[in-house]
Amino acid sequence: MTVINLDHLSSNPLLPEVKEAMIGAIRADLHNPSSQHKAGEAAAAYLDKARESVAALIHATPKEVVFTSGGTESVNHAVKGAAMANAAKGKHIVTTNIEHNAVIRSLRRLKSQGFTMTSLSVDNYGRVNPDDVANAITDQTILVSIMHSNNETGTIQPIEQIGRITRAKKVLFHTDAVDSVGVVPIDVEALGVDLMSFASNPMYGPTGVGGLYVRRGANVWPLLDGGIQENSKRAGTENLIGIIGMGVAAEAAQRDMAKRIAHLNGLKNRLLANLPAHIDEYIVNTDPEHSLPHVVSLSVQYIEGESVMLMLDDEGLAVSTRSACATGSLRASHVLLSIGLNHADAQGTLVIAFGIDNTPAHVDTFLAALQKTVKTLRDISPLYKKRAEG
Amino acid sequence: MTVINLDHLSSNPLLPEVKEAMIGAIRADLHNPSSQHKAGEAAAAYLDKARESVAALIHATPKEVVFTSGGTESVNHAVKGAAMANAAKGKHIVTTNIEHNAVIRSLRRLKSQGFTMTSLSVDNYGRVNPDDVANAITDQTILVSIMHSNNETGTIQPIEQIGRITRAKKVLFHTDAVDSVGVVPIDVEALGVDLMSFASNPMYGPTGVGGLYVRRGANVWPLLDGGIQENSKRAGTENLIGIIGMGVAAEAAQRDMAKRIAHLNGLKNRLLANLPAHIDEYIVNTDPEHSLPHVVSLSVQYIEGESVMLMLDDEGLAVSTRSACATGSLRASHVLLSIGLNHADAQGTLVIAFGIDNTPAHVDTFLAALQKTVKTLRDISPLYKKRAEG
Repeated sequence: MTVINLDHLSSNPLLPEVKEAMIGAIRADLHNPSSQHKAGEAAAAYLDKARESVAALIHATPKEVVFTSGGTESVNHAVKGAAMANAAKGKHIVTTNIEHNAVIRSLRRLKSQGFTMTSLSVDNYGRVNPDDVANAITDQTILVSIMHSNNETGTIQPIEQIGRITRAKKVLFHTDAVDSVGVVPIDVEALGVDLMSFASNPMYGPTGVGGLYVRRGANVWPLLDGGIQENSKRAGTENLIGIIGMGVAAEAAQRDMAKRIAHLNGLKNRLLANLPAHIDEYIVNTDPEHSLPHVVSLSVQYIEGESVMLMLDDEGLAVSTRSACATGSLRASHVLLSIGLNHADAQGTLVIAFGIDNTPAHVDTFLAALQKTVKTLRDISPLYKKRAEG
Repeated sequence: MTVINLDHLSSNPLLPEVKEAMIGAIRADLHNPSSQHKAGEAAAAYLDKARESVAALIHATPKEVVFTSGGTESVNHAVKGAAMANAAKGKHIVTTNIEHNAVIRSLRRLKSQGFTMTSLSVDNYGRVNPDDVANAITDQTILVSIMHSNNETGTIQPIEQIGRITRAKKVLFHTDAVDSVGVVPIDVEALGVDLMSFASNPMYGPTGVGGLYVRRGANVWPLLDGGIQENSKRAGTENLIGIIGMGVAAEAAQRDMAKRIAHLNGLKNRLLANLPAHIDEYIVNTDPEHSLPHVVSLSVQYIEGESVMLMLDDEGLAVSTRSACATGSLRASHVLLSIGLNHADAQGTLVIAFGIDNTPAHVDTFLAALQKTVKTLRDISPLYKKRAEG
């Protein structure tokens, strides 16, 4: 059965041109870019080219781009590295309640080392108020870490406003932009961030590759100590095949972004416009104005999202109930509780994340399957029965 | 010009079967192994298979294998993770003077956090005395970190004897086996190690992928906090294409190891046997008995290794003067100084690292080119002239 992927926050297919570049790199037997003979220099040229493509996408200089093994490494590097490097100045960090587990658990690790956090609450779509950020910063604050877009709701934060505050207060600002870079326009200068985590797969490059933007002069410890790769910011022989793939994906993202956004917004609007004709009693958790073009978070009341996901899977539709990084957990998502959902509605949540490979017909197939699934599940739901009985 | 690669410690070509597997994975558009729908399960099956292949190679159970982004990440994870997790018990670590920079700089980072080190000296081939390890362990020691084989000399340490000591003293034992795993037989049970870092490229798999063996029950913090991937030991979406390549490389390494060792030993012996007929006044730094089958470290007196490397490069021969991770540094290698070389001899050092793609003819080509290069350089060397006159 061909699967219709509506779970692009978990996984994006590789672009044909990315595949081609990676296969070419595999066949080329590239040497170690750090070696000083000609074979090494040839490999280093590929690395430089990919770095330039990625830097151009985010409006940074190539020297400010550090290749990593993915978004999680970038986040750990940024959060722990900034905290440890600046601990002598203060040990207070400002964040929000809806960050990805990579941020939350990096901060928890720092807590065990004597750091303290102020974790800000968000509105019903998951947006933080920049005034709250300004008020939370003290003379002990060394880092603000607030995500660019949320990986469960798709809601985008007012990063530019927050960046103005952190610049004025001279506090390092990290944004986890893993689900934004390559999807929506990102300019590190306009955003005013000092550190930005991102990954290759959201831009249709390979998994296990990512990047960290480190503004020139920002004081951050490496996470991986050792060799002098990545301008001494990240040791370890590079995943050159993956990095080459990411470079090509970054070029394509920059070239095709406007077209992609129009396509994805079309699918999202089709879904939202036609939803009322297929199901009732649901909540849309995604900010209607400030959100990623491809994501809709939908809480279908009186049923379990997990059951919907499994039934849709049997129909050849891949959707998600939450971040793939958090699967295995039985608890309701901290993001959904933080935006004010009760436990039952949180458990009834589906994340639909479109990709450039999706078509309007996929939306229609999904809506029909959702309608059937929701009816089946509500017919056997004690909660729904109770509610129907009033 | 076709380059003869005699620098396999810096870079190994991919095996044809590794290439095929990776290209297959690229074309297959695999989903995220953490996703719970069928597309995710299919990807997870590939991940499980690779983990089993790697575990079999080192005689571990699959649950004890953590995939990482390479040897450097594995080392940072092991050293920093073991230290931080056990800091309440003590803050003393035992190591040697000849570790890879990933270990040395991870330890330096820990030093800034109040840990103390005993760094043991080694003999003229770079071997540590197990008695010295036993004597260095105090009631404050929480970790011993000693490499399996050295990345500049190829000398192999008496890990099994050290493992007996650390077991008896109940101290965690990490070995950096990046240049050994997949090259020589490794059995984590026989070695008695608790943590072992290794990488995919030395076994002819892709760069940017590695593994960390974590003995069941060993208390180690993750380096990457976040999602629950890798049995909650290493967060982050996996580099699945690279891991699939590493799995196939591990299978091939196990299958072909005896044959490969015989071939590589043949090349090494041919080099060492014919060397005296081509150059004089050199030192072999590699232990004749306890060393990797493919590595010879050679200090050619009265000349600069860097110049030899560049001249051989022009003849289409890639050799190395030191670890690729340490290029850019002007200082003499800490490994070569630690085994008792003076600065001049350390600077005259070449590392020849054979691979399965090398032939006896490559050895002969190298010897002839080396003879010519050494003569040319010595003819213009003030040091050599002085010595000749002296």
